[in-house]
Amino acid sequence: MNRLAGVLAPAVTPFRRDLSPDAERFARHAKWLLANGCAGLACFGTNSEANSLSAEERTSLLEALIASGVPAEKLMPGTGCCSLTESVHITRHAIEAGCAGALMLPPFYYKGVPEDGLYAYFSEVIQRVGDARLRLFLYHIPPVAQIPISVSLMQRLKKAYPETIAGMKDSSGDWNNTKAVLDAFAGEQFDVFAGSEVFLLDNMRHGGRGCISATANVNPGPIHNVFANWQADDADALQAGITATRATIQKYPMIGALKAIVAHYGADPDWVTVRPPLMNLSAAHTAALMPELDALGFVMPGL
Amino acid sequence: MNRLAGVLAPAVTPFRRDLSPDAERFARHAKWLLANGCAGLACFGTNSEANSLSAEERTSLLEALIASGVPAEKLMPGTGCCSLTESVHITRHAIEAGCAGALMLPPFYYKGVPEDGLYAYFSEVIQRVGDARLRLFLYHIPPVAQIPISVSLMQRLKKAYPETIAGMKDSSGDWNNTKAVLDAFAGEQFDVFAGSEVFLLDNMRHGGRGCISATANVNPGPIHNVFANWQADDADALQAGITATRATIQKYPMIGALKAIVAHYGADPDWVTVRPPLMNLSAAHTAALMPELDALGFVMPGL
Repeated sequence: MNRLAGVLAPAVTPFRRDLSPDAERFARHAKWLLANGCAGLACFGTNSEANSLSAEERTSLLEALIASGVPAEKLMPGTGCCSLTESVHITRHAIEAGCAGALMLPPFYYKGVPEDGLYAYFSEVIQRVGDARLRLFLYHIPPVAQIPISVSLMQRLKKAYPETIAGMKDSSGDWNNTKAVLDAFAGEQFDVFAGSEVFLLDNMRHGGRGCISATANVNPGPIHNVFANWQADDADALQAGITATRATIQKYPMIGALKAIVAHYGADPDWVTVRPPLMNLSAAHTAALMPELDALGFVMPGL
Repeated sequence: MNRLAGVLAPAVTPFRRDLSPDAERFARHAKWLLANGCAGLACFGTNSEANSLSAEERTSLLEALIASGVPAEKLMPGTGCCSLTESVHITRHAIEAGCAGALMLPPFYYKGVPEDGLYAYFSEVIQRVGDARLRLFLYHIPPVAQIPISVSLMQRLKKAYPETIAGMKDSSGDWNNTKAVLDAFAGEQFDVFAGSEVFLLDNMRHGGRGCISATANVNPGPIHNVFANWQADDADALQAGITATRATIQKYPMIGALKAIVAHYGADPDWVTVRPPLMNLSAAHTAALMPELDALGFVMPGL
């Protein structure tokens, strides 16, 4: 099983104007990411609008991606749904396709559920998938999912399934939480990915494994450069650069902005399309964002 | 198209011990509800654990329910998912099966989405289902979905799709919101169902259509009695009775409590089973709840 490290992009999912997924553009973007600094793709993540796709759309797109030549061993697809049965189905599909791992949201409809219930959920998924190849990464994103994955829950799962529970992504936006996870698992094989490149250098300095970040969709090279040079003398300066780019992009609605950037720098206007309830980046936002990026010297080489 | 009025139960979904849906028990419960005060079933609602079911499990169970003899014209299944494509699929399926309507959650993964995005979402669903028989009820349940359906959004949709937009369920728990909806649609055909029987009498007195309430799963007769007698002299006393029963049950985790009550009063222990991340009602809670209900004179006749 390939153990991923470095910068992973939650690859944005292109839609045609009729809102159908565009497997061809998806593969092209995936290959560009892997050629430009991404060690892997956390496809079907939050920023991929995975939760705006049906289960069948997710499995079909994954198959198309692999068939296009993207190595499955570079993929860590999101496979967490609200329902146990759907999560099991999609997770099993990903593992049978040869993916390096699965990044799993907690079930996110019912709120205020007990930690024992979440434990039972993840435990059931692991047992039902029943595949020794499964490497599960827990996806903590309380601002969106509203359901946290606490350190204690992660520790219980790791203890019960030491080979399967492979790590986590922390999208809490709170470095103190990432640090607490790193401390809790110090000395264990538990790969912690920061949910934003803003925390990449801090994460590497404390034993983390890399980052899985929305903006890796458009800025993979410089982010990879921080990963590759985190022990170099200029690491802080490199970090400051990617933090500035991130700060510029995240002034705008993230998913629409990412797609607008790919559309703009790739001269491929249909890329702007998101599925409702999200909205395409507005004309005003687009007109404001691109010059700000240009002023930062932002480029997407070869797109 | 049958226009439902009165008490609708978001019928709880029975699972076998292996967590698979039990279509036979489901049909039996549905028939009991319809024979004991429910005018219809808002199956596949929040309290049905619908969001813990896959799309295929939802459509299969609906077909089994209708095949068992439950009239489709008494059904208002929940059909709202996170993804446009899945919501269209399930909604179309329900309408083609002859259901009286569809009760639709907003897409609930992405938070803080603009009202225009929600409008686009519902509008796309309606256009893609493309069936004049569709009667859509908007499901406002901000404590769980986190995504509200504002009065202004409802008005925009009603204006654009006057025949299709048939009403709403208000599970905000806030009578002021229900009242605002009733006022906004006064004089229009827009059926407002309170999300709890606690507000049933108030809702009827202000032009509402009934209630769709979790506890209608176990207390349909007395709740129907309020609906049927809302203009009678003793309406307030009747309301006080069902409010007291509700207050007792909702001291406990609702879905587990409902299933434990069906299991207890129906002498059918397997009914207690919920899917994770929810948990079966604990032994301590079960031991406390049933005597409290007995003390209120609670019965489930003929279960």
